[in-house]
Amino acid sequence: MLEDLKEKVFEANLQLVKYGLVVLTWGNVSAIDRTENLVVIKPSGVPYDTMKAADMVVMDLNGNKIEGDLNPSSDTPTHLELYRNFENIGGIVHTHSSWACAWAQAGGDIPAYGTTHADFANCAVPCARGLTEEEVNGEYELNTGKVIVEEFERRKIKADECPAVLIHRHGPFTWGKDPFKAVENALILEEVAKMASRTQRIAQFDNHSNIGIEQYLLDKHYNRKHGENAYYGQK
Amino acid sequence: MLEDLKEKVFEANLQLVKYGLVVLTWGNVSAIDRTENLVVIKPSGVPYDTMKAADMVVMDLNGNKIEGDLNPSSDTPTHLELYRNFENIGGIVHTHSSWACAWAQAGGDIPAYGTTHADFANCAVPCARGLTEEEVNGEYELNTGKVIVEEFERRKIKADECPAVLIHRHGPFTWGKDPFKAVENALILEEVAKMASRTQRIAQFDNHSNIGIEQYLLDKHYNRKHGENAYYGQK
Amino acid sequence: MLEDLKEKVFEANLQLVKYGLVVLTWGNVSAIDRTENLVVIKPSGVPYDTMKAADMVVMDLNGNKIEGDLNPSSDTPTHLELYRNFENIGGIVHTHSSWACAWAQAGGDIPAYGTTHADFANCAVPCARGLTEEEVNGEYELNTGKVIVEEFERRKIKADECPAVLIHRHGPFTWGKDPFKAVENALILEEVAKMASRTQRIAQFDNHSNIGIEQYLLDKHYNRKHGENAYYGQK
Amino acid sequence: MLEDLKEKVFEANLQLVKYGLVVLTWGNVSAIDRTENLVVIKPSGVPYDTMKAADMVVMDLNGNKIEGDLNPSSDTPTHLELYRNFENIGGIVHTHSSWACAWAQAGGDIPAYGTTHADFANCAVPCARGLTEEEVNGEYELNTGKVIVEEFERRKIKADECPAVLIHRHGPFTWGKDPFKAVENALILEEVAKMASRTQRIAQFDNHSNIGIEQYLLDKHYNRKHGENAYYGQK
Repeated sequence: MLEDLKEKVFEANLQLVKYGLVVLTWGNVSAIDRTENLVVIKPSGVPYDTMKAADMVVMDLNGNKIEGDLNPSSDTPTHLELYRNFENIGGIVHTHSSWACAWAQAGGDIPAYGTTHADFANCAVPCARGLTEEEVNGEYELNTGKVIVEEFERRKIKADECPAVLIHRHGPFTWGKDPFKAVENALILEEVAKMASRTQRIAQFDNHSNIGIEQYLLDKHYNRKHGENAYYGQK
Repeated sequence: MLEDLKEKVFEANLQLVKYGLVVLTWGNVSAIDRTENLVVIKPSGVPYDTMKAADMVVMDLNGNKIEGDLNPSSDTPTHLELYRNFENIGGIVHTHSSWACAWAQAGGDIPAYGTTHADFANCAVPCARGLTEEEVNGEYELNTGKVIVEEFERRKIKADECPAVLIHRHGPFTWGKDPFKAVENALILEEVAKMASRTQRIAQFDNHSNIGIEQYLLDKHYNRKHGENAYYGQK
Repeated sequence: MLEDLKEKVFEANLQLVKYGLVVLTWGNVSAIDRTENLVVIKPSGVPYDTMKAADMVVMDLNGNKIEGDLNPSSDTPTHLELYRNFENIGGIVHTHSSWACAWAQAGGDIPAYGTTHADFANCAVPCARGLTEEEVNGEYELNTGKVIVEEFERRKIKADECPAVLIHRHGPFTWGKDPFKAVENALILEEVAKMASRTQRIAQFDNHSNIGIEQYLLDKHYNRKHGENAYYGQK
Repeated sequence: MLEDLKEKVFEANLQLVKYGLVVLTWGNVSAIDRTENLVVIKPSGVPYDTMKAADMVVMDLNGNKIEGDLNPSSDTPTHLELYRNFENIGGIVHTHSSWACAWAQAGGDIPAYGTTHADFANCAVPCARGLTEEEVNGEYELNTGKVIVEEFERRKIKADECPAVLIHRHGPFTWGKDPFKAVENALILEEVAKMASRTQRIAQFDNHSNIGIEQYLLDKHYNRKHGENAYYGQK
């Protein structure tokens, strides 16, 4: 079942390797079929170079395995919680890419420092609050998803306008309309995270505190790419 | 029309990928035919690995599309403004390369710290002033070009002697006598930007403030490569 | 003799090159046959691209060469001391990978800053005490091994729960159940070391001192991958 | 003439590209035939991917071109001065590799922070004094060589025990018994320069000032690789 979507999720997983966003068996990509309400996700701990499209696991939104010989990614409950709450997203990516993880470990949002960021998201990339001891010792991966949703609600950020989040002390999740777009966003997030840290380093040398993109420039770049009258790219 | 120039612009765009200066559809290269006063430029938002030479778009200097099925790069008005004002340049490159963007986001010039810089430009690489809210909300890409030209005039820098500029909170533009030289300059700028930040980091450890190339050494290196009696390379 | 194990050790050595953990002839991998109590190790100073499986050297645990035309790695006595004391390990790796060496040269443990670390080890990666002048001028490589074992004993760290150590002013040793797992751990250590330094850099910008993974999150991640009821990966 | 040596110098130049030590036409390798007292060197400003062994230029030690259609590297007088004074060296390399240049631009020696350094040189890698305005405006490249020789004499460093120097505000020169060994040393220097800066960054986080390898450990590592009773590698 869902052979087409399995093929796409498989290919999107391989793109994580191609883009240098993962090593070994780290990272995972999923996608949802919104008609069937079924999610296709990478199996847990399988090496990318021996993985096949047929190894992808099919889950329903309640966490039941519908098809597949292998265990799904241990992060599956986080993916499902995001699909249940962010209704427009079609694909999700989790990686341990180095710069995004460094920001997550430092526990801070990635500030919007320039137009590369503005082309991607119309606000700082939020670092969600840390899970409590109870949340960690309970349904950990589900609670991770809940904390993301809570953070977006609390800050009144729309998932459509910010396709990324940092999990405190952990790493990034990104999403998009399909699994390929979610991978693209994982790549852009890593570029943005790297650039932001380098910006701070340069600004520090002269004790500059004046960094941070102006709101009107943020809006301009976000909207020329994603707004109603966007004019970047082809129709 | 201009099939030869389209082929060159196409190949120069692919060099951005080869040199690691762009990811996804980021960046763009253009070139001008000074006899016809026509500019050939990359189409907007097209992936590098499916792009063809025939996809290049031909524009006149007033911003009219003369040939091409696709939309030109959204940065086209910036390119045209530079061609109108910097009369010796034949090719222009825009990227979001990481180190150059970090300097642009920090809002500072890249100081001339050594001979790698001096081989490239005979002054600090200027970071142009930020655009005002009115300039951003008006003809944004045209105004970006105008701010570059204004910065070079205000500082009395010749475009021929400094083939690069940083757009505040955004990233670099570079140029050269043809599109390949403009790409080379984008690569050198990234090397220079990286080296400058690393120089600051090392100097900071011992609270050195004594960095910055001596004027006579800057002149020597710039002139042995670009001056009247240059002796680098072959005749 | 031990042709199978030689082939594995040979391949594991080549993985060091593939993963970018070594340059030139740096680094070495060994493995032990616990039935025969024989160790197979890379020869000293042989380039990776001309090395053959048959060049691997067979040693007994007392440091006698049992088979091989070439000298074993000069670090052999360190490997043997670890095999004699850490009874569950089957493979050992030594590299001069850049980030792990930088931590070793700085002389500090790599703190547990996030879940990438927690997936790998359940404590900070220890930097062993420096060798005394007498230890350096005596049986240097043997003493290096002794200092590692001493450090793990003093801190009550189990080698099974922390598959890596930093040698003061020198670099990392990692281990695992076989030589491939030891190489994997060398790769993960380098990722963790890089991420930790980047985390500090980001935290420094805002004078954050609040970094360091919470103990319950460290335990959760370590145990979901390595604990009794681990649920990462396939059965 | 010297076709064998031309082939070697050509191949050693290509290794600079392979090891990521140069971009575009940057960098150069030379070698000397001590019997004939003739030096073979890369031509100036020729791209690596079209260069042929036959393009190598033959010079005598007085700077006369003996054979070759192309101009020799503009750095030739520096190479010749080193061959005239450092009698045991057979090959020389100059690059603008990023980390070594950053140290040169910061104007400081690369301190010996660990055994990777000690395996390479038995002292800090010296940054030579800056050239005076007169020296720059006079025979610049020759004076660059003279300043290197002067620095080694003033500090009583033997070229055989430290195969590298930093030119102030410029970049590194390295050497060895042949051009391949000189390239190896350029690669090691870049690794050592990178590691040293990273070591400082990590040490800075906790205001550690206690970095720097102990003298007895420096001696041990230098001598086990290069000393009279060296036991690294094969006989």
